[in-house]
Amino acid sequence: MKTPELSRRNTALIRSLHTRHGRKKSGLCLCEGVRAVTELCTLRPELIRFAVATERGLAALGRELLCEVNLLSEATFDELSGTVHSQGVLAVAETPPEAGSADVPQEPFLLALDGVGDPGNFGTICRTLRAAGLETLWYTRGSIDPFGDKAIRAGMGAQFALKLRSFADLGALREAAAELGFRRFYVTDPHGGESCFTAPGLFDHSVVVIGGEANGATMLADAEHVIIPMPGKFESLNAAQAATVFLFEYVRRSEGAR
Amino acid sequence: MKTPELSRRNTALIRSLHTRHGRKKSGLCLCEGVRAVTELCTLRPELIRFAVATERGLAALGRELLCEVNLLSEATFDELSGTVHSQGVLAVAETPPEAGSADVPQEPFLLALDGVGDPGNFGTICRTLRAAGLETLWYTRGSIDPFGDKAIRAGMGAQFALKLRSFADLGALREAAAELGFRRFYVTDPHGGESCFTAPGLFDHSVVVIGGEANGATMLADAEHVIIPMPGKFESLNAAQAATVFLFEYVRRSEGAR
Repeated sequence: MKTPELSRRNTALIRSLHTRHGRKKSGLCLCEGVRAVTELCTLRPELIRFAVATERGLAALGRELLCEVNLLSEATFDELSGTVHSQGVLAVAETPPEAGSADVPQEPFLLALDGVGDPGNFGTICRTLRAAGLETLWYTRGSIDPFGDKAIRAGMGAQFALKLRSFADLGALREAAAELGFRRFYVTDPHGGESCFTAPGLFDHSVVVIGGEANGATMLADAEHVIIPMPGKFESLNAAQAATVFLFEYVRRSEGAR
Repeated sequence: MKTPELSRRNTALIRSLHTRHGRKKSGLCLCEGVRAVTELCTLRPELIRFAVATERGLAALGRELLCEVNLLSEATFDELSGTVHSQGVLAVAETPPEAGSADVPQEPFLLALDGVGDPGNFGTICRTLRAAGLETLWYTRGSIDPFGDKAIRAGMGAQFALKLRSFADLGALREAAAELGFRRFYVTDPHGGESCFTAPGLFDHSVVVIGGEANGATMLADAEHVIIPMPGKFESLNAAQAATVFLFEYVRRSEGAR
């Protein structure tokens, strides 16, 4: 159903969803861009409340949206968009609840993020995790909201496919993981430890922790340290690049095992 | 030498350097942030014309800047900064000339970018390449300016350490590489080809081409196709993530060979 007008109420709602406060209050999030909206429609169509698009955005989407669609001019759309060069389509959706203790991860290892506060990095890691064939992502609470509009754009909606679960700190995360049988605990450390390319138990009932850019990961007692060898001695990798190295080292080993 | 005032002329100059036109006209670029300025000071101090900082920015830098430094208030600095949460330090520097045909790459393989137009991706790839111990990056001309302020921020100044060289198109790049002895030519292809984890000649006198997000890499006749295995069947990786997989597969193989 296409309607030419966006109500004042929904205009205000969309504006509010660019803020964490607005998302928390409404329980909704903003999913913008052709690929993110496509992912949302494919994975969790039941979450969509309504969509806003331009003619160009709908053409690029190339599929029917089974919800109310407000068709706007480019100029009006741009006022609602979080990007400079918009793709002309966004959906307002319910934020899915996070995974609970009953969600037992089926993967051989868990990727965990400690203090990754940049929404672009967080979203990119969601997307890369999904490309690697995994679905569980655990993280410590901090400034990041996985369903913030920037994180969703960077993740191209991969968030909606994942089982995300947050913890107060890395200690609590470790405890929950151990209870589910993930007892090995590896923390990435730029200064030393086993090489991520040779550590034998790296993906065996384990947790692999990637730290944020500002402070790295919390160094828990008895954690095993793992390092990404860096011949260039350049201080450290971006958190999303570090996660990519681990995720695709996992893919490489799995391919070899087949 | 610290001066409390920034001249009108330099204020206008800094503003102009946020645009490609301004950078081209002046031959200068804007290097912003603590780590990027540190890199610039370490690698190419002779390029710096002057710097602008707040007290906080200078403290975070923790080193003497051997050039004219204009000390500004946070509010005045923010008007010049390209970021929302600035780190309070930026330098205006000469853009280094690009590598020429006399610069023979010493690496066993060349990473090449075809149509990577996103400055964040381009900068991240510069940083990751440097972490992997490489210094040559070739690319096809497009919308990207490696010394744009966003690309420098994402690269944390790694650009100043690299030998960058641009070509009109992938065919011209291939020809120049072959002349220097890099005769194998691999193009990443999301649809098929040899696995990047097993292709034996991947880093042996070769070029590895990563495509941009919009259109992928140009498929030249007779190029070898190489694929990043993606168990998740998620459409494709971000260009910077794809580059990271190749760069650290190279590191992994080099570590094994030692």
